[in-house]
Amino acid sequence: MQKPSIPKGMRDFSPVEMSRRNYIFDTIREVYELFGFNQIETPTMEMLSTLMGKYGEEGDRLLFKVLNSGDVLADFCAEELAEKNSLRFAAKACEKGLRYDLTVPFARYVVMHRNEINFPFKRYQIQPVWRADRPQKGRYREFYQCDGDVIGSDSLMNEVELIQIISEVFRRLGIRTRILLNNRKILSGIAEVVDEADRLTDITVAIDKLDKIGLDKVNDELRTKGFGEEAIERLRPFIEMKGDNREKLDRLKSALASSETGLKGIEELTYILDKVERVQLHSELMVDISLARGLSYYTGAILEVKALDAEMGSITGGGRYDNLTGIFGLEGMSGVGISFGADRIYDVMMQLDLFPAEKLTGTQLLFVNFSEEDADSLLPLIQKLREQGLRTELYPEPAKIKKQMSYANAANIPYVALVGENERAAGQVNLKNMLTGEQQMLPADAATIVAAIV
Amino acid sequence: MQKPSIPKGMRDFSPVEMSRRNYIFDTIREVYELFGFNQIETPTMEMLSTLMGKYGEEGDRLLFKVLNSGDVLADFCAEELAEKNSLRFAAKACEKGLRYDLTVPFARYVVMHRNEINFPFKRYQIQPVWRADRPQKGRYREFYQCDGDVIGSDSLMNEVELIQIISEVFRRLGIRTRILLNNRKILSGIAEVVDEADRLTDITVAIDKLDKIGLDKVNDELRTKGFGEEAIERLRPFIEMKGDNREKLDRLKSALASSETGLKGIEELTYILDKVERVQLHSELMVDISLARGLSYYTGAILEVKALDAEMGSITGGGRYDNLTGIFGLEGMSGVGISFGADRIYDVMMQLDLFPAEKLTGTQLLFVNFSEEDADSLLPLIQKLREQGLRTELYPEPAKIKKQMSYANAANIPYVALVGENERAAGQVNLKNMLTGEQQMLPADAATIVAAIV
Repeated sequence: MQKPSIPKGMRDFSPVEMSRRNYIFDTIREVYELFGFNQIETPTMEMLSTLMGKYGEEGDRLLFKVLNSGDVLADFCAEELAEKNSLRFAAKACEKGLRYDLTVPFARYVVMHRNEINFPFKRYQIQPVWRADRPQKGRYREFYQCDGDVIGSDSLMNEVELIQIISEVFRRLGIRTRILLNNRKILSGIAEVVDEADRLTDITVAIDKLDKIGLDKVNDELRTKGFGEEAIERLRPFIEMKGDNREKLDRLKSALASSETGLKGIEELTYILDKVERVQLHSELMVDISLARGLSYYTGAILEVKALDAEMGSITGGGRYDNLTGIFGLEGMSGVGISFGADRIYDVMMQLDLFPAEKLTGTQLLFVNFSEEDADSLLPLIQKLREQGLRTELYPEPAKIKKQMSYANAANIPYVALVGENERAAGQVNLKNMLTGEQQMLPADAATIVAAIV
Repeated sequence: MQKPSIPKGMRDFSPVEMSRRNYIFDTIREVYELFGFNQIETPTMEMLSTLMGKYGEEGDRLLFKVLNSGDVLADFCAEELAEKNSLRFAAKACEKGLRYDLTVPFARYVVMHRNEINFPFKRYQIQPVWRADRPQKGRYREFYQCDGDVIGSDSLMNEVELIQIISEVFRRLGIRTRILLNNRKILSGIAEVVDEADRLTDITVAIDKLDKIGLDKVNDELRTKGFGEEAIERLRPFIEMKGDNREKLDRLKSALASSETGLKGIEELTYILDKVERVQLHSELMVDISLARGLSYYTGAILEVKALDAEMGSITGGGRYDNLTGIFGLEGMSGVGISFGADRIYDVMMQLDLFPAEKLTGTQLLFVNFSEEDADSLLPLIQKLREQGLRTELYPEPAKIKKQMSYANAANIPYVALVGENERAAGQVNLKNMLTGEQQMLPADAATIVAAIV
């Protein structure tokens, strides 16, 4: 008899894990909806023609491909097979692949449904994605993304709202966070001023390292990478950028005075900061010109979120892209979006013990089953308790009391009701608090019992 | 430029479809939890060794198989490929497949996690499954199942609870239903008595047809199928079975007097009816000995649910199986479960116009954006409205008013707030009811506005 297993990098979620995960997903969902975002879902499988070429060569390699149904090999001639070219083979034997992220399917959705969509379209989507990555700690081959995007509006007010959404989600989850904010145009401006347009990554890495290794070592590294002395000198004001957000913007304004693009980026950042100041933000907001992500597709704001009290990479990221749907032939659709990293948020909340026991679902009251007759007589009361919203169980058979009590213990059920022959005759319920061990005798009345528990 | 499409038989779900679907899923989820069921999730992909051979030959053919990552063809020698045997090829080139139902993954889950599970294990699971079926109206290649099962308990009380769950779900959804109830042992008993153990399906089809075509024609059909006169005579009491549930059980008791198995089935059915009578059931409950489903795996109760006011096949089904986990080497685990058919329930609710507008999420209030300055001044008020739980939007840019109003119309937003220069100066909000066209001037105070809307 085979011993069953599951594919590597994939996971089963147990009841307790599910209730924690649902707590995160429900929170994100509620906040998105509070801000007027609408949920959509797209199929697990997309045509490979939709997915291929959208994530770079590495991404193409990491796509899970689904074998066509039927007699696949019938379509191949002997020569094709003899070639043993796996890539070319897959291109013909597989027309479908599994969703790799939520962004490309969203772009595809917008293009296909553009005549039904009410623009500006504020959509959110919470679904799993699959990547044939090498599994390692914290990296899975199947994981959920929780994306929110606004498409069809250039207004920076959307960035402001997304920042509020991030702040509100983490306020509700109890995670103290810092939102790092940058703008792709500022990065382009810096590259212009330094005259090293192709080496943005080297530049942002250098800026990021100042605090850790100091200016001299940063410059040494730049030299090793082949930067000339002039470029290094021009980079210096950016590397040494200090102060609060406003001070940074002031310094940037003079350092980028010669770059129209750079100044535009500063203007955008300033707009966002101005608006955000009008609302209460739970998260810190910090301008960070070393923040560089999605350099190949973001065109405006770039943001990333760090948990302040846990060692963990970015737990949310996002930015503005000016031509998401261009890949599918619909030009001129600007969009801006964020993506919550559910697995990392989960890990942070576990580390910091932030899951509130009372918010996690689970049975609130278990009725011990003493005998068929006792159980019988309880059915109407149990129905009334459920009508009042109390999550109630009756142990399904008159097993040994010890077994029933350990079931309640293992399931973390906070209250157990004992109704034996005597209680039944007296119309009473013996309610036991499993945490304190206290027992109290109550009338067998749904409202009274609910009041004693909730 | 390619025109994007999605794989056939699969679907995008738009915001309005999602909110209807969530209404169904949330209802099912809440009721399961009210009865002490715990949610689990299993991976989208299972090892093909877990899936193959569990759904019959037809099922194997309908599994979606995922091509192994990397250079798949490298593992094949020239002869293997030259054979062009697609089945044998897939067995080696694909180790993973997509979930075909929730039952086999659940059995696999129970076996793998049996040391952590708290038995009796009441689990529910709401996830999509995939079948490479020929798509047709109402049949998709990707669809959700909503299963609830209790495993590790023989008690028929579980059947009673599942019937209550069904009744409560459809009560909440507003669908009038009839639950058809049978027992596999009664069917075995009938086959024993008629002495046609291999022809259960022919027998139940005959019983089912009495109302439609009358006894003579039913018997003609049986003759055509090769039943002898004696068998036909013995079948007659079952075909003509009439009356209410209790009468049917009485008649069955005498008709099945010679079959120990049959009598056991009657005893089980009687137990369930006895218990169910102690609670209030919204659904009708009808004993129907022509109900035959899952004959190869159900061993006790069999049930199916019909909507009374819509032409539609079964919208929920289930039954007891005595050896679910045996296929994975864990014997003696009895289970009983049900599965809600989300797509059919959706269709019934659309047909009968049962989705309650007020329960479907969506923005409740849109603030028109007159100018950057006006919008600016609204941000704190909008934040307060959201704090009070009102789903609120600010149109992101000062577009033409007409455009903003048609956005609100298309999104079915019930209220629009107009705050121009005058209102701003007066600290007021002009609130427009989009359904009636009525406008009222309110102070720019969150609580007042919420009270006017909710």
